Amino acid sequence: MLKTIANMQHKGGESTLASMSIETKVLQKTSPDAPFEIATIQRRDPREDDVVIAIKAAGICHSDIHTIRNEWGEAHFPLTVGHEIAGVVEAVGSKVTKWQVGDRVGVGCLVNSCGECEQCQAGFENHCLNGAVGTYNSEDVDGTITQGGYAQKVVVNENFVCRIPDELDFDVAAPLLCAGITTYSPLAAWKVEKGQKVAVLGLGGLGHMGVQIAAAKGADVTVLSRSLKKAEKAKELGAVRTLATTEEGFFKEHRGEFDFILNTISANIDLDAYLRLLKPRGVMAVVGLPPEQQKLGFGSLIMGSKVLTGSNIGGIRETQEMLDFCAEHGFGAHIEKIGVNDVDAAYDRVVAGDVQFRFVIDTATFEQA
Amino acid sequence: MLKTIANMQHKGGESTLASMSIETKVLQKTSPDAPFEIATIQRRDPREDDVVIAIKAAGICHSDIHTIRNEWGEAHFPLTVGHEIAGVVEAVGSKVTKWQVGDRVGVGCLVNSCGECEQCQAGFENHCLNGAVGTYNSEDVDGTITQGGYAQKVVVNENFVCRIPDELDFDVAAPLLCAGITTYSPLAAWKVEKGQKVAVLGLGGLGHMGVQIAAAKGADVTVLSRSLKKAEKAKELGAVRTLATTEEGFFKEHRGEFDFILNTISANIDLDAYLRLLKPRGVMAVVGLPPEQQKLGFGSLIMGSKVLTGSNIGGIRETQEMLDFCAEHGFGAHIEKIGVNDVDAAYDRVVAGDVQFRFVIDTATFEQA
Repeated sequence: MLKTIANMQHKGGESTLASMSIETKVLQKTSPDAPFEIATIQRRDPREDDVVIAIKAAGICHSDIHTIRNEWGEAHFPLTVGHEIAGVVEAVGSKVTKWQVGDRVGVGCLVNSCGECEQCQAGFENHCLNGAVGTYNSEDVDGTITQGGYAQKVVVNENFVCRIPDELDFDVAAPLLCAGITTYSPLAAWKVEKGQKVAVLGLGGLGHMGVQIAAAKGADVTVLSRSLKKAEKAKELGAVRTLATTEEGFFKEHRGEFDFILNTISANIDLDAYLRLLKPRGVMAVVGLPPEQQKLGFGSLIMGSKVLTGSNIGGIRETQEMLDFCAEHGFGAHIEKIGVNDVDAAYDRVVAGDVQFRFVIDTATFEQA
Repeated sequence: MLKTIANMQHKGGESTLASMSIETKVLQKTSPDAPFEIATIQRRDPREDDVVIAIKAAGICHSDIHTIRNEWGEAHFPLTVGHEIAGVVEAVGSKVTKWQVGDRVGVGCLVNSCGECEQCQAGFENHCLNGAVGTYNSEDVDGTITQGGYAQKVVVNENFVCRIPDELDFDVAAPLLCAGITTYSPLAAWKVEKGQKVAVLGLGGLGHMGVQIAAAKGADVTVLSRSLKKAEKAKELGAVRTLATTEEGFFKEHRGEFDFILNTISANIDLDAYLRLLKPRGVMAVVGLPPEQQKLGFGSLIMGSKVLTGSNIGGIRETQEMLDFCAEHGFGAHIEKIGVNDVDAAYDRVVAGDVQFRFVIDTATFEQA
């Protein structure tokens, strides 16, 4: 059984699942090159452990662009993307125990997983051995293709919903569900803490979260960028300094300086040179995916017993921990708010690196569109 | 002041440092291509915190060969190599507190370090920020070039000496000082334990120690090799199985199987393929150094949040821990004992992979040579 705010308002009572029809406006593309268009789709019939969320804000992640422009292949059209979702619970299934109508919640990159494998059991739904269900362009448990968060409503299993603390507005919270957890997870897993020297490579959507999180953990944060153009912004975010990697002698001067490097860029890098910036037993975590294989001398890892690791979002428990951490430390994403008609232009600006630091779609603009 | 067994026997008393002359027979080369020859050299004048060790056994490590054949460059001739040293304390300096004449001891790849940097202070003399002193072909604190363990005696700072437990014979203990600690350190650092599935890639001097150590820690050990030729031997060492990586479908069949891969080979590998053999959050540690850069797709680390790390020997405290571990579990290196006249031939056999699994020089044969 599912209760909805709408039903309660209109009928003053309850409605059963059978009577529910979860219709929602979405932004979709019908092909990789088509512009976005507004359409109305049916979400899957809610199950007893589902919640229906009225979406307030949806962040634009670079993955959305790669997927819907078919740059990663296998996009199913028509398609709605978006996996940085913030909103309010509008209805809950009869067996939902964690959520109530009116709760402020978020949904990230995952909407389901097997729940039974050792990874799910350990809280790493992101590594589900039976294949987690992605928030969009993924085969759902009922065989349909999931549709993302550039929409007014979404239907999600209650276990894949996180609470958005009251301290965080929907728009600055939405990007945390992907960019936030992607950077929080390696910083937490590798126990970055006060007194450590942390470098964040690249200051885009991911990097700006990495800087804030590492700084909030008490680390001495350095932004590494090709130029000093974003130095002022880096400081605002909590970085102690910005260094230009293109400066002559940079790699020699800063050899052995950092405990941890968070590599957020998706471009090819001179990996051996960057690994030399680490102290012995230092760690470089990569969260950006360059299209080509990188070259690596094993000596760069052996000398100093260094670590190179990757990180792919995080589990649901850790995503909640991240949201609570951000609220406790009083920060969210730095965003530029746009309307549903602005998304095509925003995509071009993301690709050009022209955003500080995340576009977020105000879904209220569906009403005027 | 230094006491020596010889002096005590001959004079029934003590001799001072000033009167000591630490002369020793060594095996040396005068050029990369020259055969080994026996020579007599003076060890550096012992200091008050030094011990003089009468060497009983010296292992042959592939690094010895690379160094003295000048394949790594910068070899200083005439040169004596060898950093897998086992013997008996013959004399101790006046301020030595840890050792007594007659103690069974070993020396590995390091004979000194600054002792003051954060790495030394944390027990990682192998990562000394001011440059540890290698056991051979390294600039010593007095500016001379260190000479290794293919010798009758060696003079070493007491802090770089480890105790060889009584359970371990000198000859099977010697290789532990390099091959043992090189494989023990990553297995310990990454907490390999009972219940885990561990793959050891390559079954040579390093691999055969890795198998024994991982098995003693209770892991389910698989040897990965190009063929099944060494399967029988692998089983003796404690491996549950050997798998041939050249078998069709190998990488598909064993995808996601291992918690930990210890890569002991020095050849190029398809790194992405091997990383796919790891479970999510699995770790590959490399201890062998291929001459070229390897290719790595960052996606291989990001998907499953995997770890690629290197490891370079270990600190002194950990080396002692490793020796005690081996003694407790009743194993040492599997060796082929040779005399001082056999080393040239042994080198060729090491390069050809024709040894199970370590050559050890019986230094008593200096007397007959």
